Amino acid sequence: MPTEATMKAVLQAYLDNFNAGDADGLTALFAADANVEDPVGSPPHIGTEAIRAFYVDAMKNGAKLSLSAPMRGSHSNAAAMAFEAKIGTLTVRIIDVMTFNETGKVTSMKAYFGPEDFIQG
Amino acid sequence: MPTEATMKAVLQAYLDNFNAGDADGLTALFAADANVEDPVGSPPHIGTEAIRAFYVDAMKNGAKLSLSAPMRGSHSNAAAMAFEAKIGTLTVRIIDVMTFNETGKVTSMKAYFGPEDFIQG
Repeated sequence: MPTEATMKAVLQAYLDNFNAGDADGLTALFAADANVEDPVGSPPHIGTEAIRAFYVDAMKNGAKLSLSAPMRGSHSNAAAMAFEAKIGTLTVRIIDVMTFNETGKVTSMKAYFGPEDFIQG
Repeated sequence: MPTEATMKAVLQAYLDNFNAGDADGLTALFAADANVEDPVGSPPHIGTEAIRAFYVDAMKNGAKLSLSAPMRGSHSNAAAMAFEAKIGTLTVRIIDVMTFNETGKVTSMKAYFGPEDFIQG
């Protein structure tokens, strides 16, 4: 099981790669058979190619991500973070939960936000 | 599926009942067969009696809960919140994810925090 520090470093790398527009760097954080459900309630993106394509598309609107509060670990192979995505004058409030394999790669990601979590400003 | 507003109101009632020391009110938010994993990585508490006993015990240390950021909904029957538990001079940083049934009762709760999420102050 990866350490809490390792999992939180991957969460930070997720934010950094997204903000840098680095889809390859972002995709490299995930295991080959990872499952991304973003937002929770939508069809998942499964596997490297689908995940890369999802993030290439997600980055097109120029969203910038910033933490809302310090990341949280767990007593298992999971960690979570509350953050905001700013897209022009729009802000989306999100909580991501990720699970990890033995090598520290992300095996699943779930993004919690609903239609009412989009706000102006 | 409950509305986002309904799910967030239940999350708020969770905080309010916990802070009021009302184990019965807190337990009433959960479905009879609900599953509480707090923290993630520990054995779950399943069903009304186990959940009530867990919260009676959890309240004994006088922890007070406050949101770290606005709650998040989802595009499904789930919602999440980042909050802090203050116990004397100790602060625990937590993210809770809950799922809900058609009547708005909580069917599962997972609390994400690890040993490194306990801080002084």
